[in-house]
Amino acid sequence: MSRYLSLTTLDGALEVLRERFACHPRTVTVPLAEAAGRITAAPIFSRISVPPRHLSAMDGIAVRAEDTFGASEQHPVTLTDAVRLNTGNVVPDGYDAVIMIEDVAIDGAAYTIRAAAHPWQHVRPVGEDIGETEMVLPSHRRIRPFDIGALASYGIDRVDVLDLAVGLIPTGSELVPLGTMPEPGQAVESNMHMAAAHLQALGARCTHYPITPDDPDRIAMAVDRGIAENDLLIVSAGSSKGTRDYTAGIIAERGDVLVHGVAIKPAKPVIIGSIGGRPVIGMPGYPLACATILREIMEPLLGMYGLQPPVRPRVRARLTTTLHSDIGTDEFVLLSAGRIGGDWVAVPQSRGAGVQMSGVRANAYLQIPRSAEGYAAGDTVGATLLVPEDQAETALLITGSHDPALDYLADIARGGGVTVHVSHTGSMGGLLALKKGECHAAPMHLLAEGGDYNVPYLEKYLPGEELVLLTVAEREQGIVSREGLRLEDCTTHRFINRQKGSGTRLLLDHLLGQKGIDPAGIDGYGREVTTHLAVALAVKTGEADLGVCVYSAAKALGLPFVPVGTERYELVARKAVLDEDSRLASLFSGVSSERFASALASLGGYDISRTGVRRELP
Amino acid sequence: MSRYLSLTTLDGALEVLRERFACHPRTVTVPLAEAAGRITAAPIFSRISVPPRHLSAMDGIAVRAEDTFGASEQHPVTLTDAVRLNTGNVVPDGYDAVIMIEDVAIDGAAYTIRAAAHPWQHVRPVGEDIGETEMVLPSHRRIRPFDIGALASYGIDRVDVLDLAVGLIPTGSELVPLGTMPEPGQAVESNMHMAAAHLQALGARCTHYPITPDDPDRIAMAVDRGIAENDLLIVSAGSSKGTRDYTAGIIAERGDVLVHGVAIKPAKPVIIGSIGGRPVIGMPGYPLACATILREIMEPLLGMYGLQPPVRPRVRARLTTTLHSDIGTDEFVLLSAGRIGGDWVAVPQSRGAGVQMSGVRANAYLQIPRSAEGYAAGDTVGATLLVPEDQAETALLITGSHDPALDYLADIARGGGVTVHVSHTGSMGGLLALKKGECHAAPMHLLAEGGDYNVPYLEKYLPGEELVLLTVAEREQGIVSREGLRLEDCTTHRFINRQKGSGTRLLLDHLLGQKGIDPAGIDGYGREVTTHLAVALAVKTGEADLGVCVYSAAKALGLPFVPVGTERYELVARKAVLDEDSRLASLFSGVSSERFASALASLGGYDISRTGVRRELP
Repeated sequence: MSRYLSLTTLDGALEVLRERFACHPRTVTVPLAEAAGRITAAPIFSRISVPPRHLSAMDGIAVRAEDTFGASEQHPVTLTDAVRLNTGNVVPDGYDAVIMIEDVAIDGAAYTIRAAAHPWQHVRPVGEDIGETEMVLPSHRRIRPFDIGALASYGIDRVDVLDLAVGLIPTGSELVPLGTMPEPGQAVESNMHMAAAHLQALGARCTHYPITPDDPDRIAMAVDRGIAENDLLIVSAGSSKGTRDYTAGIIAERGDVLVHGVAIKPAKPVIIGSIGGRPVIGMPGYPLACATILREIMEPLLGMYGLQPPVRPRVRARLTTTLHSDIGTDEFVLLSAGRIGGDWVAVPQSRGAGVQMSGVRANAYLQIPRSAEGYAAGDTVGATLLVPEDQAETALLITGSHDPALDYLADIARGGGVTVHVSHTGSMGGLLALKKGECHAAPMHLLAEGGDYNVPYLEKYLPGEELVLLTVAEREQGIVSREGLRLEDCTTHRFINRQKGSGTRLLLDHLLGQKGIDPAGIDGYGREVTTHLAVALAVKTGEADLGVCVYSAAKALGLPFVPVGTERYELVARKAVLDEDSRLASLFSGVSSERFASALASLGGYDISRTGVRRELP
Repeated sequence: MSRYLSLTTLDGALEVLRERFACHPRTVTVPLAEAAGRITAAPIFSRISVPPRHLSAMDGIAVRAEDTFGASEQHPVTLTDAVRLNTGNVVPDGYDAVIMIEDVAIDGAAYTIRAAAHPWQHVRPVGEDIGETEMVLPSHRRIRPFDIGALASYGIDRVDVLDLAVGLIPTGSELVPLGTMPEPGQAVESNMHMAAAHLQALGARCTHYPITPDDPDRIAMAVDRGIAENDLLIVSAGSSKGTRDYTAGIIAERGDVLVHGVAIKPAKPVIIGSIGGRPVIGMPGYPLACATILREIMEPLLGMYGLQPPVRPRVRARLTTTLHSDIGTDEFVLLSAGRIGGDWVAVPQSRGAGVQMSGVRANAYLQIPRSAEGYAAGDTVGATLLVPEDQAETALLITGSHDPALDYLADIARGGGVTVHVSHTGSMGGLLALKKGECHAAPMHLLAEGGDYNVPYLEKYLPGEELVLLTVAEREQGIVSREGLRLEDCTTHRFINRQKGSGTRLLLDHLLGQKGIDPAGIDGYGREVTTHLAVALAVKTGEADLGVCVYSAAKALGLPFVPVGTERYELVARKAVLDEDSRLASLFSGVSSERFASALASLGGYDISRTGVRRELP
């Protein structure tokens, strides 16, 4: 875009932060009970020796070892000045060993032993654990729960830790606060809630200011307050170069705009400014853009203040889709990464910066460096995990036909520790992903000539392969509309279609053929969406008058539904994968669970008489 | 021990927990801002569609695409019923595309365009992100910061998350609360502070009750209250089978003692009981035993309640020391694990259950399974990391002679992101560790016949090896005492010695030889400790009257010090390791820093005129 002719690279932006800001962390003293997870601001020294004196490590008697020399079964020794003590008692001065009470015959104050003690046996010497003045923890160390116990033992009840105050200012006249339902044209202010959660988890202390409307005077007041009260400031949205984007101008009046526009995607319109020596970050408004800046710019910045953001694990993964990217731009693409057999497979999420669910679904991301034009499907790429590796290992990639019931199946599987990642590609997309080994299982409902589902397609596209087909349900498809329209009404009303390759599209074309209706005469036949609910939503909002979807989607939105028939919706997997992968087996067994049956019943429109039926190929 | 004839195995104890407790988690509704990191108790559904209507993705004009068909540079089309809108505005009903404002010539209400729009261009369709009623998150899902933003966008301001109330009851008449300095025979109550930090980080809500003295009636009252107010209860200490161990009896009166004694080390005396269907765990009192139970029993138990404790990364590491262990007992040994060259090396920490610093220093642990008698030095074992792998990668293993200055050097290196793990083996131990490639560097001060330090020993034990020696300081050794004693006084007073193989021991023996003093005539010559501070502590507490240590140790405890000479304290590393390992290079450069010089000055007793001098072998 012409508005960003001279974008700064991501590396360049980080360099600006390093060079222009001193980033001196502040120190705060916190009670020990609140210190876990925080970073020490200075070394911590023990105030006492532990143990403070020689202690007995056993219940027994304190003795002078030399008095016991020579004692044996044949020659017992009787001591008259031994001292009875329990575990943890101080060994009196002059004594240098403890004999366990089990090994002593007691007769009043006379203790008879039948084995010699060696010096210092069963004694915990003074300072065994730590000596007073010794360093317990260095500075810049994250305090672990175990450290809390040790510090308590060493007499330390308050510690100095790093502190960083971050101000978060959401701006935008279209924003309503959390707890208010947005009208059309409004949105709930969400980015600074995400930022607060993200930065607080890294050890920053965030102040989330109220929403400021798009009024330069009011934003300026908020910035003045925010910079006075914090070490660094984030101003959310208004960071572009449009007429309603005031952030850069407000920073320039008070300090310096060091960077305006960074060559990263999604997140180009970002500002790095300085007011009074403190960083001010102007955030783009799209949620995924904001998340990208939090990760790629705010995390390194917090690191400069000593807060030690995480280094995320990386895996080598096979990319399922070709991704083009602009030379000169670092692009970040969210992924669903899962292990199939021994190998990681990475399925890119939607690249739309407004699709917040991509971030909810993703467990990894791919950085396409500015030197690359992208990657091709099948390339092995470095995927950075957004979750711990053990959690990424729970990912099951399910690619194919969409059905609302899949979310409920995923929910049931989650109880067993499996994380289902669903990609809505339509039945044919699922079939091809299965063929290429790019998913664990593919849900599909491909109606073939003879009336059977799926098997003829699988025999054609994956000939000879050992496959397992599991019926999820026989589900009702039909016409959704606001006024109870029927399929025949598609020639006189606006239609909303499903994408090519989806089973529902095949069904529609089959029905149109039966009824002799020419698609060319259908207004909206070319308008495609990818889920049943999207069809129902288009009808509900008036964009279209009718479309084809499953009953549950119509029911969810309270719309009339005229059935056109039931179809077999099956999950298909390679037999070898199913046999070896307990996660997939767990998902499959969830299909037969009572909980799933009751979920299907409450969704409506599913015949479960065949649910759980297993077929095998060849 | 005869008191634990029939110990339950660790697996058996976990089996008891699984079988005997229903572990139904409770659910609590929390504001969204407090939900990050918690686990969803039920699926969360979107309350709205996002976008709620078709929105413009650009600043521009809304058009009907079909009105624009045919527009071109040669044949501009002028529209009179287009609608001006900004990014995020609702596209009015009947319009199906947006043209960017840059591509429009505006004349009042007439908009002229020179290219056709395709249907739905620059329109964010209703529900593009999510449709109302769609599932945002399944149950049993940890809520990430990104999810917080998405949930806010979808109109959700409170969420149901899993909750677990854990009561923590510390018992013991010898305990004083945090903030009170313990007298000899007392200890600061620390284990339940550690437990609270540990369990809260896993998502439990802990109530830390006041210390209850060893009085069965008062402990019983505390247990009754704790079980009424919590889902599960921990009673700390009193879990053994001695006369002052009341926990088991109190549980038995109110419910069932299911397990008393588990075959794990350190942590044998653990109780698993049940009162009113709720688990009561009797914890051993030693800090490392308590930490072991938190990790090996409490974490799985919290997992049974759905709280998803971490799966810690494991590495294969070469063990530096032979570890014997009892058949039938699962033993857990703390480790300092570090990567030397390409390989992980694991140095066992002290196995004393009272040495809390072992847990502070360790970054990993080794489980010796009950089927094994231990491992031999050099064996490759599975080490489980207690820190994220990237943090373990910062570990530098420094093995050899002890000096308090090393802690300050470690502190300086920590600022550069390096984590120093010091093992006090004495100079000869360091030399051998260096020879075997089991440390990154070895600090040493080995006095040779000709008066030089270290080089003659290195030439003998590591002949021909390329080594780098860096002088940390010339440090003053001398006689520490309470009354200004001199070395000659060792024949008439009680002495405290350093261990064989330490440079200080070599120095002592050298001085004794010079003065013609026979070690056999020294009371305490056989009493060995492993650090300078331990020598000074033994003198301070009256166990001994004199010993040899560095000036800084005597000064730290305010004791008189009579110098016997200075010696060269050097860090020695293999040249290849130093050249390739930026962490080690960073430690070495810290030696020459001003901060280190001022640390040495304030410790006292160091001559820094040669500090930073580098020698090379051969």
